[in-house]
Amino acid sequence: MQMAPENEEKTSNWFKGINVAKIVNAAKDAKQLGKEDPRRIIHSLKVGLAITLVSLFYYFNFSYEGFGVSAMWAIMTVVVVFEFSVGATLGKGVNRGIATLLGGALGVGAHRLASLSGGKAGMYHSRIIGFLSAVVTFIRFFPKLKARYDYGLLIIILTFSLISVSGYRDDEVLQMAYIRLSTILIGGSATVFICIFICPVWAGKDLHNLIATNIENLGIFFEGFGCEYFETKTDKDQETNASMDGYKNVFNSKGTEEALVNFAKWEPRHDKFRYRHPWDQYLKIGTLTRECAYRIDALNGFLHSEMQTPMEIRAKIQESCRKMSLECSYALKELALGINNMTFSLHIDHHILSAKAAAKKLKSSLKTGLWPDANLLDIIPAATVASLLIETVSYTVKIVDSVHELASLSQFENCDATLPNETSREEVTRSPGIESHSLSITVE
Amino acid sequence: MQMAPENEEKTSNWFKGINVAKIVNAAKDAKQLGKEDPRRIIHSLKVGLAITLVSLFYYFNFSYEGFGVSAMWAIMTVVVVFEFSVGATLGKGVNRGIATLLGGALGVGAHRLASLSGGKAGMYHSRIIGFLSAVVTFIRFFPKLKARYDYGLLIIILTFSLISVSGYRDDEVLQMAYIRLSTILIGGSATVFICIFICPVWAGKDLHNLIATNIENLGIFFEGFGCEYFETKTDKDQETNASMDGYKNVFNSKGTEEALVNFAKWEPRHDKFRYRHPWDQYLKIGTLTRECAYRIDALNGFLHSEMQTPMEIRAKIQESCRKMSLECSYALKELALGINNMTFSLHIDHHILSAKAAAKKLKSSLKTGLWPDANLLDIIPAATVASLLIETVSYTVKIVDSVHELASLSQFENCDATLPNETSREEVTRSPGIESHSLSITVE
Repeated sequence: MQMAPENEEKTSNWFKGINVAKIVNAAKDAKQLGKEDPRRIIHSLKVGLAITLVSLFYYFNFSYEGFGVSAMWAIMTVVVVFEFSVGATLGKGVNRGIATLLGGALGVGAHRLASLSGGKAGMYHSRIIGFLSAVVTFIRFFPKLKARYDYGLLIIILTFSLISVSGYRDDEVLQMAYIRLSTILIGGSATVFICIFICPVWAGKDLHNLIATNIENLGIFFEGFGCEYFETKTDKDQETNASMDGYKNVFNSKGTEEALVNFAKWEPRHDKFRYRHPWDQYLKIGTLTRECAYRIDALNGFLHSEMQTPMEIRAKIQESCRKMSLECSYALKELALGINNMTFSLHIDHHILSAKAAAKKLKSSLKTGLWPDANLLDIIPAATVASLLIETVSYTVKIVDSVHELASLSQFENCDATLPNETSREEVTRSPGIESHSLSITVE
Repeated sequence: MQMAPENEEKTSNWFKGINVAKIVNAAKDAKQLGKEDPRRIIHSLKVGLAITLVSLFYYFNFSYEGFGVSAMWAIMTVVVVFEFSVGATLGKGVNRGIATLLGGALGVGAHRLASLSGGKAGMYHSRIIGFLSAVVTFIRFFPKLKARYDYGLLIIILTFSLISVSGYRDDEVLQMAYIRLSTILIGGSATVFICIFICPVWAGKDLHNLIATNIENLGIFFEGFGCEYFETKTDKDQETNASMDGYKNVFNSKGTEEALVNFAKWEPRHDKFRYRHPWDQYLKIGTLTRECAYRIDALNGFLHSEMQTPMEIRAKIQESCRKMSLECSYALKELALGINNMTFSLHIDHHILSAKAAAKKLKSSLKTGLWPDANLLDIIPAATVASLLIETVSYTVKIVDSVHELASLSQFENCDATLPNETSREEVTRSPGIESHSLSITVE
């Protein structure tokens, strides 16, 4: 008899323990999510605001009498269309609007067609609906259409089926199509208005910043690499060590980049971005950044490898390697800063030229035989590091070139604002053939 | 006066040309899509069938009188929930069903709460709806919830808003919640039934095949690499050359793998897969496959590099390199075949051991100085190829180990069915410590 309450107490304590721990963890996670990106909280509030406004609209008697139960389509549109970024919202909104129009027209057409056939309209109707749904479902597999219009095609099937099915019953099919379209327009415009005019989140800007951050991460690695590999660490370097792994984020950003490009294409002019900003160029830069990051990953492997090369062997390549890695670091960091400010600094070319000179010097000294009497297995890691660095120089050149292409396509300013005093703003013209340099390095 | 009809003809010809060409192209694309994966056509027909059946249901008078206009929820559910694979459909269906239940309960609750407050119910209502929508929208940002329950959370907001808003008007809120739930159940069960019992597409099986194909592609590269690099081409090799690039597909399959794992987790027992099949293990294998593919990409670069090593230098490493690459090829191809048949051949270990022996031999011969008088710049590419091959051996071991882990988790058969005559089915026990071998190779 004594056991029962004791057991009960234990169980309830155990339950409490679990629940309290879980709730505390969830709260911590929520706080972390909000801290990482406060726009998430703002977005949630914006969705709440939009739904409140549209549901208030539902309570006004005059609109209820006009639209009846169909006013709920307005709420539905807000819930379904409101996305995090302006581009995603506009894409879904435009898709939904046009698809409702098309699907409605098809539905009315199918209704007329079926009513011509007289008595057995129901059977004909169902078959037409089934056939058209199958066709549109197949169209959704086309990769180009899937990328931009998948949601629209879904809504065409939906509206078409609903209109033609309800039409058979109500015989007020035009009226219904009109009501559905106008309620969707009301919901959609409330959504788009709130999304654009209250703290907008632009997918294009996010993409722009993501590319800049990725390039900066590569630069940060190169900055630390020279000191790390040639073991001239000071206390300060201990800090950079942790941030040197930032380049690893580049590997996982491919999906995000593609999604953001798709959204950004829907966005109107904002900040310094025009309506037809060359968004596809960002994908090209992203791919080059990732290819460079793979070489960096291989270099990083040599930093932590247990198969170390003796110091005297490394010393022979130290000067050129440090030069290359530092100049690449300067170029990439200045490039990232320039992307952020929508400028293109002409200093970058100086850094690139120095890096190339160092690469050339290293190559010719490798030819003449730097290590005459050393063990081959000691040399291989050092030689691999050298050739990886030479490769990364050519990737840096490619990245600079593709950003330069972006800059000229989207009319960045050519400026030296980032380092105003060094060359007293002399007019440096960019050598046109920097693309050909990159080839000569890799082939050489 | 003569110009006008001529021009008109030209324009109409031009229009015709464009239209005919476009239509022909679209038809060709459609044919191609159907040929690539005939299941796409079957899926479209299945969707058409499901919508036809549910819309027929709408025409039966008794059900119309029972559910009224709400019967369209059934059609809506079919259109929105029917996805290509069983897992995706079940995931969406379960999410939609449970979310409708939860959202409905919340809606009824909010309705009761607001009606307690009397006259200004409308205002209170809107605020409650707005607040709860904001909270649920924020919850959608939790990464774990987003992966599996994003659609359900959206439907909670939707149902909750619709129920509580309509409830204020109709005062038949329980009735409406009941109707919405039952129509969704009818649409959902028709969808799930057709999806599972007519030519089902299992995401789990697709994932399983994708992993096997990726591993096979790595094996195909290794098979051709030895002949290509040491230039002992015959006419037959010309054919393999084209298929050697198959490993490049591995780079783009990460997103597909993650999506398929998410879908597969919803699927019931099918073929040889249990309900709780170790799907996450596939992600691990996929990652290792990609890491191996990056090394392969580097090796491929040396095949087409203009910086070629003289033949006499390559000849020194030829034997070990060809051995390693062939043994890896055999092991990977047998592994892929085994995954397809859900078996794990014990021959794989023999191939792995031979590849390791060759790697060890090459390492020790590199130490003793293979090329005493050669130019360093000639040696570096050959030495890099050798060390990349040694690395790929250790990646092959890792892939074999992770597939073996999958095999023991999901109870593959240990068998030698693939090569029945060679060892006369003697009982070979798998050495337990193969994991530790892989370490010793990389550290050595």
